[in-house]
Amino acid sequence: MEPTDAQAACFETGIKFGSLYHQFAGTPVSPKSAASLARAMEEAIENQPACREVAVEVDEDAVAEVSADHGYAELTGRLFEAEVVVEHQGVEVVARMAMEGGYPLMRVVSVGG
Amino acid sequence: MEPTDAQAACFETGIKFGSLYHQFAGTPVSPKSAASLARAMEEAIENQPACREVAVEVDEDAVAEVSADHGYAELTGRLFEAEVVVEHQGVEVVARMAMEGGYPLMRVVSVGG
Amino acid sequence: MEPTDAQAACFETGIKFGSLYHQFAGTPVSPKSAASLARAMEEAIENQPACREVAVEVDEDAVAEVSADHGYAELTGRLFEAEVVVEHQGVEVVARMAMEGGYPLMRVVSVGG
Amino acid sequence: MEPTDAQAACFETGIKFGSLYHQFAGTPVSPKSAASLARAMEEAIENQPACREVAVEVDEDAVAEVSADHGYAELTGRLFEAEVVVEHQGVEVVARMAMEGGYPLMRVVSVGG
Repeated sequence: MEPTDAQAACFETGIKFGSLYHQFAGTPVSPKSAASLARAMEEAIENQPACREVAVEVDEDAVAEVSADHGYAELTGRLFEAEVVVEHQGVEVVARMAMEGGYPLMRVVSVGG
Repeated sequence: MEPTDAQAACFETGIKFGSLYHQFAGTPVSPKSAASLARAMEEAIENQPACREVAVEVDEDAVAEVSADHGYAELTGRLFEAEVVVEHQGVEVVARMAMEGGYPLMRVVSVGG
Repeated sequence: MEPTDAQAACFETGIKFGSLYHQFAGTPVSPKSAASLARAMEEAIENQPACREVAVEVDEDAVAEVSADHGYAELTGRLFEAEVVVEHQGVEVVARMAMEGGYPLMRVVSVGG
Repeated sequence: MEPTDAQAACFETGIKFGSLYHQFAGTPVSPKSAASLARAMEEAIENQPACREVAVEVDEDAVAEVSADHGYAELTGRLFEAEVVVEHQGVEVVARMAMEGGYPLMRVVSVGG
């Protein structure tokens, strides 16, 4: 079957998460540069179609820990959380990425009117 | 509201497309290397959860054209098409990326039982 | 032969440019998000070993032009210039990336004491 | 001072390593997909100017270990070694990346005639 509007909106939301993650994974990051990276991630993905808001929070304690040996680390899903709000064909979708069981899990939180 | 199984499956499918695109966008590509890149893109994304199949077809004519000046180009959505099949919580989703109106449009083709 | 200190410093400088380019190529960018992206690129690469300074200037006119159709574009070397200063084993190297003949050319500007 | 031919060749070699690393860092990888990824990495970077040869060896044991929990992992410098040969302005440079002290160290092995 063709997707419903809500299914299409969920697909769009997934695109934003995959983009956010794989565009920036591997970026050198340290406690000093965490804030500018988070802001660039938000503003970059907010450019994509139907994307109303992106919030990225880098876990500065985690970054400090993994940066201890060499002064910096590479961005992975263990180092940040994200929330994305998409509005597509009149349907609002909210989704989040957070660590669960040692894995950065992305999931839809709500699908609404 | 919480997402339905079909909505969650569409979200998963979107993740695969965003990942595929933004992991590999910018990769140096030429007619000679197009096949190995396509294969790596397919096998990389097929590793992701719930991903049953990924098919990437690089447009070798388009690559040849944009490679003419410098012997290679950087991968963009104008240079390949992709199809992804996800099965998540019993729902199969098929989605495609192809050029439409000068833009690499990603969309869900079918959501099934 | 083993590399001299100056040759090793030039190698380090090249690493910074390749990293800068291929980490961020493909990032969605618009006139509105250009500044945050430039800042994140600078601060990310400045984390790398021996990197004293990175300056990235996104060409906002070029971004506006390529964003006209869809509201944003993907970052390529046509849209920004960069300068990197490395100090490695007592040798300072300055290098730049700028468009030359339709190609984003990276080259060493000076190798010093 | 302007760079010598050998210094410029070392700079070119560094570009290849930075590109190789940051284009592909974060790619989903498993024991099953390691070979296609390695091949794509080699052929992609061999497209770049002055690049004569790239050899990438993914450490399948390391990949198997980090993939154990979720079936795959994301590519980092801990999971592969690489050798690049550049010939630029008549100077051949060989460089390698390998783990040293828990860090994926890139260095020039030889600069020749």
